[in-house]
Amino acid sequence: MFSRKWIAAAALGSLLLAGQAMAQDKKVIAVSIPAADHGWTAGVVYHAQQAAKEINAAFPGVEVVVKTSPSAAEQVSALEDLSASRKLDALVILPYSSEELTQPVKAIKDAGTFITVVDRGLTDSSIQDLYLAGDNIAVGANTAKFMIDKLGGKGDLVVLRGIPTVIDDERIKGFQDTIKGTGLKVLDIQYAHWNSDEAFKLMQDYLAKYPHIDAVWANDDDMLLGVLEAVKQSGRTDIKLALGGNGMKDIVKKVIDGDAMTPVETPYPPSMIKTAIYMTVANLVGQAPVRGTVKLNAPLITQANAKEYYFPDSPF
Amino acid sequence: MFSRKWIAAAALGSLLLAGQAMAQDKKVIAVSIPAADHGWTAGVVYHAQQAAKEINAAFPGVEVVVKTSPSAAEQVSALEDLSASRKLDALVILPYSSEELTQPVKAIKDAGTFITVVDRGLTDSSIQDLYLAGDNIAVGANTAKFMIDKLGGKGDLVVLRGIPTVIDDERIKGFQDTIKGTGLKVLDIQYAHWNSDEAFKLMQDYLAKYPHIDAVWANDDDMLLGVLEAVKQSGRTDIKLALGGNGMKDIVKKVIDGDAMTPVETPYPPSMIKTAIYMTVANLVGQAPVRGTVKLNAPLITQANAKEYYFPDSPF
Repeated sequence: MFSRKWIAAAALGSLLLAGQAMAQDKKVIAVSIPAADHGWTAGVVYHAQQAAKEINAAFPGVEVVVKTSPSAAEQVSALEDLSASRKLDALVILPYSSEELTQPVKAIKDAGTFITVVDRGLTDSSIQDLYLAGDNIAVGANTAKFMIDKLGGKGDLVVLRGIPTVIDDERIKGFQDTIKGTGLKVLDIQYAHWNSDEAFKLMQDYLAKYPHIDAVWANDDDMLLGVLEAVKQSGRTDIKLALGGNGMKDIVKKVIDGDAMTPVETPYPPSMIKTAIYMTVANLVGQAPVRGTVKLNAPLITQANAKEYYFPDSPF
Repeated sequence: MFSRKWIAAAALGSLLLAGQAMAQDKKVIAVSIPAADHGWTAGVVYHAQQAAKEINAAFPGVEVVVKTSPSAAEQVSALEDLSASRKLDALVILPYSSEELTQPVKAIKDAGTFITVVDRGLTDSSIQDLYLAGDNIAVGANTAKFMIDKLGGKGDLVVLRGIPTVIDDERIKGFQDTIKGTGLKVLDIQYAHWNSDEAFKLMQDYLAKYPHIDAVWANDDDMLLGVLEAVKQSGRTDIKLALGGNGMKDIVKKVIDGDAMTPVETPYPPSMIKTAIYMTVANLVGQAPVRGTVKLNAPLITQANAKEYYFPDSPF
């Protein structure tokens, strides 16, 4: 009886040891992202958590750990914490700012961790193994193409800009280069800082100033919400199109519902964090080569394909 | 008793129906690739089958089906067969030839299938949703950088070319642009058509013609095998480096073993088919955005990282 108990205890011990060994053998992917400080980053957090859930369920040998940080300084501390407590096989990072995160990420890379950078590049691109981002020029260009087509090649437009950044510059450049030489004319273009309230006020100014406007390009979905409210309150009927950009679920829902004023959308999807996580897993689990660069297109979201871009449970 | 039996039978019936419904609900990813007609494509077949095994085990809702074809005409028939018997949610294709496969792939796209194209592009790039390829310029450039460094910035080289194609042109361009302005001098450069025997003979010619050679760039691993044999048979000791390209397992093994003449390798990995399959799964399973372009780097494979590129069970 004693011996049988002992064997059972020994067997249990082996199981526990095996369990621990397995936990230690798991490949760890840390995902470091900004906290949900506005709609788009809230989407990033949602999709990172979804990816972790899906990957952890699908691959028993992998553990995806998601950590959000409300500032660049806190993201630097988070990286120290994540890498102090265990060896990271991979780090997927959307840096809060390029300057402050470059050296801390380099330190993790130097310890032998695979580095995937999403959206905002580091100041030293040699640190990243994989870089993945959207295409802001295409966001502007594809929106412009649709407007040219829909308005029959001519019309009076007003445009809203975001915050002066490379992102905003590229979107505007893609748009302006595409309408060049057509009958589409930009009556006015001003900054509203990716802010719904500012966009509402700016659109009210535009409406007061221009008795005829065919279309508005809000360049961003938060700003589009302000624009739509201003148009609605004005009671004006001359405005045929008001388009945004980014893939906010409220706007994608309009596209699904066949909204007349906002029949299309262009994505700069926060779900790109998920693509980066899946690709990093492909490298760790399947030894698939992923070192390189991914440039995501910004295909027009129409009623036909909108469901692919719609996440009713996401905050964004 | 009768009623209990009936309930049990009804329950079993529901289970069977549920099982059938699940099988029908599986998202199908067809993978269409050339048959294993030489080393590199044999690697493609191996990695596609590995990916199918891994994905089918990890994601119960997905079925990856791999089909190999020994010619462009047979790949066209294979596509017809694959899409006739069931709805394809996605097609991952490495086209045998661009011209013959473009229209058949377009027909599948038009039926609503997601299209991932690997390595060889179609003649109409608007058909693909995702395009993934390696970087042949980097294969040449990164090899050249290593040679410049290893030979101290000067030396006499001989180079072998493959088959006159864009692939070969890009590799050679990457190499020649990088050595420009250094003390590395190409004594001779001739075609050996990615063939081991031809490379053996060409290298014998080079050895007869040039009494002093510091390094050989074979540009491809099949050709490198011929070159190494010719050098070995000659008994010459002036040749310090003989490098290839592609990531053949025999050459990666040399790197792992610290071979003096072939201490590094550059990948153009057949395992890129696996990356394409994982990314397509990310889109189908996780709604992750993958429409766009992936350009894989050709980082130098050294003794430090060679295990990541080594597949002892692969034919290549």
